[in-house]
Amino acid sequence: MKLASLKQGRDGKLVVVSNDLAWCADASHIAPTLQAALDDWARVEGDLRNLATDLEHETIPMMRFHERQASAPLPRAYQWADGSAYVNHVALVRQARGAELPESFWQDPLMYQGGSDGFLGPRDSIPLKDESWGCDLEAEVVVVTGDVPLGASREEALAGVRLIGLTNDVSLRNLIPGELAKGFGFFQSKPASAFSPVFVTPDALGDWWQDGKLHRTLMVDLNGKPFGRVAAGEDMTFDFGTLIAHAAKTRALGAGTIIGSGTVSNRDADGGPGKPIGEGGKGYCCLAEVRTVETILRGAAETPFLKAGDTIRIWAEDDKHHPIFGTIEQTVVAD
Amino acid sequence: MKLASLKQGRDGKLVVVSNDLAWCADASHIAPTLQAALDDWARVEGDLRNLATDLEHETIPMMRFHERQASAPLPRAYQWADGSAYVNHVALVRQARGAELPESFWQDPLMYQGGSDGFLGPRDSIPLKDESWGCDLEAEVVVVTGDVPLGASREEALAGVRLIGLTNDVSLRNLIPGELAKGFGFFQSKPASAFSPVFVTPDALGDWWQDGKLHRTLMVDLNGKPFGRVAAGEDMTFDFGTLIAHAAKTRALGAGTIIGSGTVSNRDADGGPGKPIGEGGKGYCCLAEVRTVETILRGAAETPFLKAGDTIRIWAEDDKHHPIFGTIEQTVVAD
Repeated sequence: MKLASLKQGRDGKLVVVSNDLAWCADASHIAPTLQAALDDWARVEGDLRNLATDLEHETIPMMRFHERQASAPLPRAYQWADGSAYVNHVALVRQARGAELPESFWQDPLMYQGGSDGFLGPRDSIPLKDESWGCDLEAEVVVVTGDVPLGASREEALAGVRLIGLTNDVSLRNLIPGELAKGFGFFQSKPASAFSPVFVTPDALGDWWQDGKLHRTLMVDLNGKPFGRVAAGEDMTFDFGTLIAHAAKTRALGAGTIIGSGTVSNRDADGGPGKPIGEGGKGYCCLAEVRTVETILRGAAETPFLKAGDTIRIWAEDDKHHPIFGTIEQTVVAD
Repeated sequence: MKLASLKQGRDGKLVVVSNDLAWCADASHIAPTLQAALDDWARVEGDLRNLATDLEHETIPMMRFHERQASAPLPRAYQWADGSAYVNHVALVRQARGAELPESFWQDPLMYQGGSDGFLGPRDSIPLKDESWGCDLEAEVVVVTGDVPLGASREEALAGVRLIGLTNDVSLRNLIPGELAKGFGFFQSKPASAFSPVFVTPDALGDWWQDGKLHRTLMVDLNGKPFGRVAAGEDMTFDFGTLIAHAAKTRALGAGTIIGSGTVSNRDADGGPGKPIGEGGKGYCCLAEVRTVETILRGAAETPFLKAGDTIRIWAEDDKHHPIFGTIEQTVVAD
């Protein structure tokens, strides 16, 4: 089952979307918003699934689904917690600045509490007030949970995964060092993230969702050119079950919690830093990583951060090259 | 005007509460929940104020207001961002561990993104799975904002303050050093916070709300004995306007954002660390601070962190010694 929210008010209007993303059906008689559905999942899931079946059979009124009319599936959420599950990415960034990677980073997930009071839709532009802030994209996989009890095990946590999707976790790289030096984590350096047009239930992904990982290639284009073709199922040190259990160690998680994977990142086949797509590599899911590789290989970063007019695309494909979650397609605009 | 949420479902039921906190009136025909009211403030504020006036005049159906039946005014929120506006507190903690306080801490607010997917009510017990985590209370002032635009000035930010209240920002002190060392801020070390039974509009506070500060004494009792009597309007380096503007530097803030002051803390009259109430001082709003003062004066912390059975009370009084926001009154229980 695929779910989306059409732009309407603060929380959007819930629709069920066909597998090919061409059609949708109003689901607001079952639950007005996706958050309301997640709040009451045990009661509404069956009705939503029946609606999805009817939509596939074209036995109910349906509308064309236009991704530009979609908000983020949760236009705002009660929790957005982002991990750094691809430790290769963290190791590279540290290597570039000559900092050691603590051994514990391979056993204990990094996670930060993100702002969740307002997200960007998949076609919304990225407002940027100051280019010197160093605006970057970060292509990630996310899951949405139901209620997760305090102290949940990895298995209990995985059973709590309701939906899977993609995000562009926008970061202001040049604000990060000062903010992290203060010791309290990210705040100003993490403006609103954007999410894929649809979120998908685990069963609808079949074998692509296994062991708490999405086994598909995350596709990233920058200004119309391939920038990343990175395998989300590989090099993910901490699966989503482990990430959710980490988040629930000292407190229960409310339904509608969004947990992120952190920037997807693959090691190169020879074990070194990944190569650009133009050099036969898999490329990158953020600019910081290509800048890091440039720094390691040639002493300085060459690829600039995002500026007004730059465009990015993030998606993942099925075997017929159709987007599974729709496409995040954003342009940076001077605010 | 004073607003509260009676326990009901995930978001409570909105009531208007009389100034003396004895009575309340159902406001759910105006807005079902406090979040719904904040989402639509321009439309509903007048109706809520009329209801409050009718309640004071006893011209409408009213019920006894029992603080134990109240949830947090926002039982869950889209954003909880906590500052450290009383830099004295930060300076003391650093002094105790021999760390320098960067000069910038007096100009640039510290703020962390807190978890907001589930808050404790004012009488809810504090669940503690492991006493070795070092459970602490933190008595703070909070404000709730309307929509605040990206890049808001301090004045615009102050105009966005809708409500004022108190919090007990529960902290797990022994998890903090490890978590902050990882560089991504607090996560497991900050379980659910509790909030005062009622939140109050700025106008209802009169002169007690001035220059973006609450000019009342924050009262804290620990196990039935006075522990803190700290002036919230003094030694607050950053007022709420400055804190909100800091939060809005790179992104708009959604209606219902809760901004915290950080632990309220006063310097001693002689400029040294504050004294306990038993020694004629104003005491403290968290255990970490008394432990810090003990460490500075006598080389080691003596006051233990919270354990099962410990009780805490947090409130602020009007001139007749009646609680303004009701009372946070919690017991720690082994979970």
